[in-house]
Amino acid sequence: MSEVIAKSKAAKEAATVLNTLTTTQKNEALLLMADALTSEQNRLLAANAEDIERGRAQGTSESLLDRLKLTPQRLAAIADAVREIVELPDPVGEVIAAFDRPNGLSIEQRRVPLGVIGIIYEARPNVTVDAASLCLKTGNAVVLRGGSAALSSNRSIVAVLREALSRSAIPEDALQLIEDSDRKSVDEMLKLNGLLDVIIPRGGASLIQNVVQNATVPVIETGAGICHTYVDESGEYAMAEAIALNAKVQRPSVCNSMETLILHETFARKHFAALADKFREADVALKGCDLARVLVPSIESASAEDYATEYNDYILNVKIVKDLDEALIHIRRFGTQHSECIVTENSANAERFLQEVDAAAVYHNASTRFTDGFEFGFGAEIGISTQKLHSRGPMGLPALTSTKYRIVGSGQIRT
Amino acid sequence: MSEVIAKSKAAKEAATVLNTLTTTQKNEALLLMADALTSEQNRLLAANAEDIERGRAQGTSESLLDRLKLTPQRLAAIADAVREIVELPDPVGEVIAAFDRPNGLSIEQRRVPLGVIGIIYEARPNVTVDAASLCLKTGNAVVLRGGSAALSSNRSIVAVLREALSRSAIPEDALQLIEDSDRKSVDEMLKLNGLLDVIIPRGGASLIQNVVQNATVPVIETGAGICHTYVDESGEYAMAEAIALNAKVQRPSVCNSMETLILHETFARKHFAALADKFREADVALKGCDLARVLVPSIESASAEDYATEYNDYILNVKIVKDLDEALIHIRRFGTQHSECIVTENSANAERFLQEVDAAAVYHNASTRFTDGFEFGFGAEIGISTQKLHSRGPMGLPALTSTKYRIVGSGQIRT
Repeated sequence: MSEVIAKSKAAKEAATVLNTLTTTQKNEALLLMADALTSEQNRLLAANAEDIERGRAQGTSESLLDRLKLTPQRLAAIADAVREIVELPDPVGEVIAAFDRPNGLSIEQRRVPLGVIGIIYEARPNVTVDAASLCLKTGNAVVLRGGSAALSSNRSIVAVLREALSRSAIPEDALQLIEDSDRKSVDEMLKLNGLLDVIIPRGGASLIQNVVQNATVPVIETGAGICHTYVDESGEYAMAEAIALNAKVQRPSVCNSMETLILHETFARKHFAALADKFREADVALKGCDLARVLVPSIESASAEDYATEYNDYILNVKIVKDLDEALIHIRRFGTQHSECIVTENSANAERFLQEVDAAAVYHNASTRFTDGFEFGFGAEIGISTQKLHSRGPMGLPALTSTKYRIVGSGQIRT
Repeated sequence: MSEVIAKSKAAKEAATVLNTLTTTQKNEALLLMADALTSEQNRLLAANAEDIERGRAQGTSESLLDRLKLTPQRLAAIADAVREIVELPDPVGEVIAAFDRPNGLSIEQRRVPLGVIGIIYEARPNVTVDAASLCLKTGNAVVLRGGSAALSSNRSIVAVLREALSRSAIPEDALQLIEDSDRKSVDEMLKLNGLLDVIIPRGGASLIQNVVQNATVPVIETGAGICHTYVDESGEYAMAEAIALNAKVQRPSVCNSMETLILHETFARKHFAALADKFREADVALKGCDLARVLVPSIESASAEDYATEYNDYILNVKIVKDLDEALIHIRRFGTQHSECIVTENSANAERFLQEVDAAAVYHNASTRFTDGFEFGFGAEIGISTQKLHSRGPMGLPALTSTKYRIVGSGQIRT
């Protein structure tokens, strides 16, 4: 039996125990996990140092090594994040609907754990702790498959967390790490219907596409974001400038940052030159449509491919349109249904934008950067879903649950 | 451009219009559809006669031909089902959550249509009308791919419905039928990410497995049901007999009927012989475990394969267990997480069963046959989901929706 199958079977067995635990029992286990991350700090840092050393020897960039690196401060922050998950309300057991039927049947719909969740992710070892905590809090067993660059760190983290679980009501087998770094172990997970209930990919576009294209297990797709900000004719300049700059440069590397700024022609003729200066001061390289280049000749030309690119970088496309309709058409063609914003003082146009744009989050006069579990007040998030089924947008704990109908009768039969 | 791509693109375009319509506009369109099914009755019956004739020439069984056949009465019933969908509340636009953040952002989560739904199904032409009405009512465009046996009927039904839509606010392109009966048209639909938002298969196990195994578009899995009834030591005989017979014979061909009866040994020693007589009177062939065959020697032996078979027929496995734990293990091994029942007077055992059995619907003292949208009071259903993501159990109209966050600000940026 392969590592993937053996560990997934063990996880499934453990899930049946997890399903019977109380919120208190689960929280106690999470607190033991948090404590272990600091009390076993030296072991974890030593394992992490192996990853860093191996990465440096293989020529990994310093910025990637920095994402991989653990420090006492970072470990403390990771442990604190677990303690924050303890404080969140447990969705499991929540009665979503309860009703009686004319034949006397009493029907309740309750939240239940999904069962066993597979997480496929890349380098950062904090995801290991984060995903494990969110899954266990919601009564799910979890099978983690992290990137090989962090293998020593992940192995050590999971060992420490499992030791903590062994002193709790949660079976240690509820937390599994696939150590086989061959790509085949991912392929195997993707087809493990019957053992894994869902797979959540966390990482770059190619990781996510591999999962979406090849999984037969249901997937929650997260990640890709080509987000637009559209400044309407009536948009206030100061507000538009603040929102557009924030959406682009506050953290360009994340999915809710802006890739294309769409300007109404009237607004652009008045303000684009000034706005372009602001972006230049912020080190953002601009690419634009023909009219944008007439107004600001120094910028490069933007191709259809540029409009379809998630830069995650200090690069911005500028598209000038003659009206809201043209903006909506551009967004429909190039958007990834993540986060889209209109800056306008025209409430009819705002309502049309909010209604007609098909995206997880649509904004009127606020930065797309707010699409985030913490910013929405959900606490920790497992990711931002860019699909329409199950959960859309920032996923809090309820996204890690399913439901079950409980029907209580007194001998009813169907006639 | 293939038929599948051309029609899916047209459906996606139409979905943007559907998304802006009011409930009244959608209901008016549905009523025109219902009326057209009776006013165009002769056209529909003539087309259906072609299917029946072709089927008979190809040696199709009379029972399948009966499922395919339309009559004036059946058409009237199908039209009435559309009118019942008109009466159901429209979930689209429902505000699921609304909250303000400390920074002044106002966030609303609203139900929105999924977009474009692909339905892949088999012979019965009533599914054509049913699926179209449910999708359009919830603001979704729909691409139908029915079985070739019903092609003439489906073509004629869709033509009549599209004519009705042409007199309504819903664009006719919101309803598409794929006429290409080559299997490749199904394969093409399964990979149509970006044009189809979800695929719902309706039909037998092989149709559903093909979709689940090969789709890259998100799927809502429906259908397979290996359902159990467990009679505990304290189960009342009269109730157990009524529930078990109902679950098996009231309609054996459907997914919520029982395939295996599990009896506590004490109950079995007292009552299995009498119960076996009742099943024999109802023309049900019994297969049993060793102990069952000791108690009623005339029955055949049940293999592991039998326990894993969805008979959908007058055949029943009988498994005798020594306690609830053994029953739970059997259900975990062979159940398909559809509908499971315990008959008991012991409330602790009932609670354990309801809590621990992992299924869409768990019953205490009632027949599994109640797992059904009408019986739950949801009105028409698009199917019974046997997956855990998005929707589980009978799917009413809300299962055909997604959600969208609408965030209204006054210039907020993230710091």
